[in-house]
Amino acid sequence: MARFAAAVPTEPPSRKRPKAGTSASVSISFQNCAHGPEIAAAPLRPRGRLGAVTVLALGALVIPALTSPGQAQTPGKSQDTLMEQARQQFQPIPENPPALPGNTATPAKVALGKMLYFDPRLSASHAISCNSCHNIGLGGVDAEPTSLGHRWQHGGRNAPTVLNAVFDKSQFWDGRAKDLEAQAGGPIVNPVEMGSPEPHVAEQLRGIPGYHEAFAKAFPDETDPITLANVQKAIAVFEATLITPNAPFDRYLKGDPNALSATEKAGLALFMNKGCAACHNGINVGGATYAPFGVVTKPGASLLPPDDKGRFMVTKTPGDEYVFKVPSLRNIALTAPYFHTGAAWDLRVAVSVMGASQLGIHLTPEEVDKIAAFLGSLTGEQPQVTYPMLPPSVASTPQPQP
Amino acid sequence: MARFAAAVPTEPPSRKRPKAGTSASVSISFQNCAHGPEIAAAPLRPRGRLGAVTVLALGALVIPALTSPGQAQTPGKSQDTLMEQARQQFQPIPENPPALPGNTATPAKVALGKMLYFDPRLSASHAISCNSCHNIGLGGVDAEPTSLGHRWQHGGRNAPTVLNAVFDKSQFWDGRAKDLEAQAGGPIVNPVEMGSPEPHVAEQLRGIPGYHEAFAKAFPDETDPITLANVQKAIAVFEATLITPNAPFDRYLKGDPNALSATEKAGLALFMNKGCAACHNGINVGGATYAPFGVVTKPGASLLPPDDKGRFMVTKTPGDEYVFKVPSLRNIALTAPYFHTGAAWDLRVAVSVMGASQLGIHLTPEEVDKIAAFLGSLTGEQPQVTYPMLPPSVASTPQPQP
Repeated sequence: MARFAAAVPTEPPSRKRPKAGTSASVSISFQNCAHGPEIAAAPLRPRGRLGAVTVLALGALVIPALTSPGQAQTPGKSQDTLMEQARQQFQPIPENPPALPGNTATPAKVALGKMLYFDPRLSASHAISCNSCHNIGLGGVDAEPTSLGHRWQHGGRNAPTVLNAVFDKSQFWDGRAKDLEAQAGGPIVNPVEMGSPEPHVAEQLRGIPGYHEAFAKAFPDETDPITLANVQKAIAVFEATLITPNAPFDRYLKGDPNALSATEKAGLALFMNKGCAACHNGINVGGATYAPFGVVTKPGASLLPPDDKGRFMVTKTPGDEYVFKVPSLRNIALTAPYFHTGAAWDLRVAVSVMGASQLGIHLTPEEVDKIAAFLGSLTGEQPQVTYPMLPPSVASTPQPQP
Repeated sequence: MARFAAAVPTEPPSRKRPKAGTSASVSISFQNCAHGPEIAAAPLRPRGRLGAVTVLALGALVIPALTSPGQAQTPGKSQDTLMEQARQQFQPIPENPPALPGNTATPAKVALGKMLYFDPRLSASHAISCNSCHNIGLGGVDAEPTSLGHRWQHGGRNAPTVLNAVFDKSQFWDGRAKDLEAQAGGPIVNPVEMGSPEPHVAEQLRGIPGYHEAFAKAFPDETDPITLANVQKAIAVFEATLITPNAPFDRYLKGDPNALSATEKAGLALFMNKGCAACHNGINVGGATYAPFGVVTKPGASLLPPDDKGRFMVTKTPGDEYVFKVPSLRNIALTAPYFHTGAAWDLRVAVSVMGASQLGIHLTPEEVDKIAAFLGSLTGEQPQVTYPMLPPSVASTPQPQP
């Protein structure tokens, strides 16, 4: 598997990704535009400040060199070659949720996490739940440019999907949370989102009698289990169940040559050969690295507002200005609008913008159509979730503060 | 079954209620405080303007006379008598949803209705769905005094539960919608609630490609099925499935003497003998009649704000001032806060207020506890709903207008 290291600190690969050091884990990174690729089997580690800036632009040049030009356009053996090439860069979504380190997913904890995920009383107003912005019926997002939060405030960035988020290397567009557990605490207490003061979260839940038993079952070894930390743990194990296996592309990766149409295969070939897969690779077809938005050509301010400097706001490192986590493209056909601004409603426009801004290439309308068709093959089986019955509010329950 | 006619026009009984004209359907109504009860087997019809004002107050005096004092406190035969008395006034929730006249519930229509019920794109902001205020995980309500709607506006009255609403004689606190189908159109276009301009609703849904097939399947005989009227029909057949059978009280009504505890039985006896069941009767333990709030003693302005004159705003009939639909008490333990203002969080307080304001009696704390225990036995099996996958927004979908 060819992986391209970004300029930002990396973390150990997900347990669902190939281990470093095997023949499939050669990492390719770039120190500078002028220097060309450095190929190394060493574990991924921070690179020079220009690395992330150049990876996407060079991807367009490098990836085609790894494969035979036009191989996806011919039938027979070239089809097998396309599948083999894809298998080197992508992995299928597994059938079962992955385990979370240090956070065992017992049935009681998953059940509690589901309740909390749907419970609007985690918000100050009692009107906004995790599912409000990460709607499991809408591909794990809210079909808004940016979400509406507490007192009708708009969030700063487009809500990322919760589906398959467990496979991302970090959470939020700027990666400021290392995993689902860390992420889950963010929106609950964010004044623009759910708006619950941090000490209030546990107080609120303690005031709902039905949660006492639910937390006791989920955290049987603790004497006072209703804490924000345990809320985050429970939500994380539930969210880890929100995976979407068996997309046509997964079936293709697993060996079914007929799982993709000819157009989708042509789109897959373009996706790899034009350089998209330089960043959008792995199990989540993205989600594994950071990259600056506008490597070659800066998109307009509607797509890249100057005041949101992305990961720079986390790391304060100059090279991280306008760097964002490369989003997963899993279920992308379900999650319009696109980009961290949510300013692009048309998947074809988004593909075209990425070609120009990240790869410095003009994709023809036919190429865009084929790539969009391939992206449609990333829609997997959506999670089947039975709506949880939530424990009722009673006289002693802290009341909503809308 | 003893029924008390209110002062407002009545409609034919629900198909799930006993037919008029049988020995069990004697209707008791009151023309005036000074005249005492009039017992008649005739179908319910509008009465004089004071009828509704007096029915609740007199209920407290009349109901005990129909039964032997203290019968519920003694075991054996008196237990059978209690069950028999209850059976005359209440009916169990059926296992299966009732049919809706003129709106056949096909699987395709129910499935569409479920999608629409959960789809926030029926609102102008794309952030508020039917389920936002009638949350099926929260007893069919939102655990708010009044709901938060479009642009964080507060609704005028507490959101009534959707659970078992199909058995109510009309919808909304003031009964201004004759059935679920009529109700479903209200909040979608209400500027304070979901805020979609009426012509926009169908336009919005037509802009979501996946709905074309869903509506075509649900309304196979129509050439242009995506209409607000059909939205209402589909939502209504889904909502009709949201019933909660097999509450302990239902099992008791069906003949299991052990389905209620001794305390719950004592509460049931009080509920009938003190007069509560004068209005709160039938399949929904309410929902079948209108009554003024504050028959004997006006509650304070927090519970009965002077500017909300209830059904008067629908009928413009002076006798309907401060008249409201008697709410169902089904699943009442799940649906705090209470009253049309949502100003009472404590079920015991609500019971106490009703005793004083409607019946002119002081219920002791022990009596309140017993009645509240009985009300807890009205919590039935909650609907098991698999969260629907909603068709995605695309480039041509009308965008949210938050």
